[in-house]
Amino acid sequence: MTTSPHSKERTLASSEDRILASIRKFGALSRAELGERLGYSRATVASALDRLLMLKIIKEERELGQSQGGRRPRIYGINRDLGFVVGVDIGATHLDLALADFKGNILEQVSNPADVHEEPEKVLGTVIELIKQALEKQNGRLDQILAIGIGVPGPVQFDQGILIAPPLMPAWEFFPIREFMQQTFTAANVIVDNDVNVMAIGESCAGAGKNIDNFIFVKISTGIGAGILCQGEIYRGHDGAAGDVGHICVDYNGPTCHCGNVGCLEAMAAGPAIAARGIEAAQNNQSEKLAQAFTDNNGTLTAELVGDAAKAGDAAANEIVKSSGRMIGGMLASLVNFFNPQLIIIGGSVSHIGIRLLSAIRQAVLRRSTALSTRHLHIEFSQLGNDAGVIGAIWLSLEHVFTVDV
Amino acid sequence: MTTSPHSKERTLASSEDRILASIRKFGALSRAELGERLGYSRATVASALDRLLMLKIIKEERELGQSQGGRRPRIYGINRDLGFVVGVDIGATHLDLALADFKGNILEQVSNPADVHEEPEKVLGTVIELIKQALEKQNGRLDQILAIGIGVPGPVQFDQGILIAPPLMPAWEFFPIREFMQQTFTAANVIVDNDVNVMAIGESCAGAGKNIDNFIFVKISTGIGAGILCQGEIYRGHDGAAGDVGHICVDYNGPTCHCGNVGCLEAMAAGPAIAARGIEAAQNNQSEKLAQAFTDNNGTLTAELVGDAAKAGDAAANEIVKSSGRMIGGMLASLVNFFNPQLIIIGGSVSHIGIRLLSAIRQAVLRRSTALSTRHLHIEFSQLGNDAGVIGAIWLSLEHVFTVDV
Repeated sequence: MTTSPHSKERTLASSEDRILASIRKFGALSRAELGERLGYSRATVASALDRLLMLKIIKEERELGQSQGGRRPRIYGINRDLGFVVGVDIGATHLDLALADFKGNILEQVSNPADVHEEPEKVLGTVIELIKQALEKQNGRLDQILAIGIGVPGPVQFDQGILIAPPLMPAWEFFPIREFMQQTFTAANVIVDNDVNVMAIGESCAGAGKNIDNFIFVKISTGIGAGILCQGEIYRGHDGAAGDVGHICVDYNGPTCHCGNVGCLEAMAAGPAIAARGIEAAQNNQSEKLAQAFTDNNGTLTAELVGDAAKAGDAAANEIVKSSGRMIGGMLASLVNFFNPQLIIIGGSVSHIGIRLLSAIRQAVLRRSTALSTRHLHIEFSQLGNDAGVIGAIWLSLEHVFTVDV
Repeated sequence: MTTSPHSKERTLASSEDRILASIRKFGALSRAELGERLGYSRATVASALDRLLMLKIIKEERELGQSQGGRRPRIYGINRDLGFVVGVDIGATHLDLALADFKGNILEQVSNPADVHEEPEKVLGTVIELIKQALEKQNGRLDQILAIGIGVPGPVQFDQGILIAPPLMPAWEFFPIREFMQQTFTAANVIVDNDVNVMAIGESCAGAGKNIDNFIFVKISTGIGAGILCQGEIYRGHDGAAGDVGHICVDYNGPTCHCGNVGCLEAMAAGPAIAARGIEAAQNNQSEKLAQAFTDNNGTLTAELVGDAAKAGDAAANEIVKSSGRMIGGMLASLVNFFNPQLIIIGGSVSHIGIRLLSAIRQAVLRRSTALSTRHLHIEFSQLGNDAGVIGAIWLSLEHVFTVDV
């Protein structure tokens, strides 16, 4: 467990930490409200607030709170000026980065092409440069960065912040991302997590999953993965491998997946499979629209182009989109029986190909899950869309500003 | 949230509760060990211990603890004589019941035939009689029963202790089990949970799942269900329906299940399916052993008899057992990809039909799960066997002796 040089001084007692988390979640609160919510005595609240005020982590707000009978009470909120945090979403071909204040408000945001197949030093070098540029615009200093949250497209050993056997980015295996970043940002806690977990955190803190304790976030793009929110916290599994739903088998006679198995959901329903089926339909004259798009796009198609044709009413494209939704929904039906979540959030770049995808997913889940487990289940699109990763990374960093052991 | 009449006086502060849980889990501990384990100050430990000692919930042990440099410290353990708790495991055709001391040691245990299709008043009336008889043998009084844990074969709304849409026992839906029992046992908290969850609690506290935070307990009997231990606690899902893995589809062209869907795991791999396939083999002259057993057993077979033939080396019976294991393992492979547990425990009456079942389950999981998610995975038989339910119910009750809101 590595810690940033300053993190020891910043360590919070459990009561302080829980008070901070409550204020972060619910906004500014009075002493009485904090005591009530957390079951703390007045003395515990008082001494924890004193320390948080002394460290300038929270501040007394100018406004007063709601009266509960007597005079209106003082309320305490996050001190947004304590310092900066950074959220980084590293994708296969790009990176998104945002600088935020201590309240999570985004101050600067930037997108940059990046190739995750390259050495981590190179990609992270770009990240460092982009953070420095954003900081300069805000007239900030390097040591004002309190935490950096980083989402990466691979399995992460969360407590150490390293990637384990990442298929997309083999050069990153065991690379000490945290220590590398802390050479420049000496005051920052650096937290690394799987990209889908980070998106789920984003939806949980600021999107479709707000105030929902148990949900599954499904990312549909080049691959398919899930982030699991369980009892209000991200569940990562025993080896950090939880949520790897793209390799659940949906057809024992299906095509071979890059993982070596056959019939994986990812190989049959993710972006490349949708594109391949679109190309097949274009070449077999099953769809004029797809054939036209195929020609216009230099003899190839993407899942997005198949989606465009579906939105324009093309029957073959629609069937491709629905078939993908049915397979994803069939897999999710099993997970609904097992996990009985309150919500499933559908996100990732390929989720944008249309509401027919969502509709097919919903139908398949309802058909194949038990009645009791779907009684209160909602299945919705992501609210944060393309920003889920970067917003989630900011919230991940905010959660760990004062953490010694991740 | 109903509470027993005395439970208010018995409510523990969070620090007291956590200290008690630690002592329960790890055995008698010293003040220093408690402070270390829980991150509490000396003052917090001291005041919590004082109250727990005053309430006679814990006691100072005669032995001293390990020296950590200075003199050997006093250690504090559970006061087993505080009162009694009861564990009840209600099955479709029988009920198992045990009276235990406050440390969880079983003092009296009894099994009784019961028909869960009958009115809850009748079945619970039998439970009350059996508790009274056990109590009498121990010279105990009704008001010395501090908590009663009850496992039932159906979906439970845990916070209210009622069954929701239970297919096996429709007459029990919404029946106020807790209030009914508390009319007799006025000092008892009564906690009702799904039978498979209760078995998982048993394995977690006293069986194969000890000290393991994330595991799946699979019960294979007339049906198939799972109990989920997640971050050290039973996970029940949003509607109390989590773990209903028997109705996960394993064959879209499979037979119709009693739930109305086709190809449910339960319809294809549980006890009745194994028996039916055994009967088919007996009648089609595929196996002399099965034909003989079929005749000896008055023209029918059970899963256990098919298991006996398999153990005696019958090829057809073996293939039936292995086929069931393959289907269960195929379903579990999906859950391993999703949940990445450290352990899967195989229990329930039909799990006894042999190690070929376990071997087939293991093979199927290894074949179809990702390499990372099986890196540390163990798949084992239940350690508690037929007692998992009743032992789990005791531990469930012990966890909730001092709970106001379940």
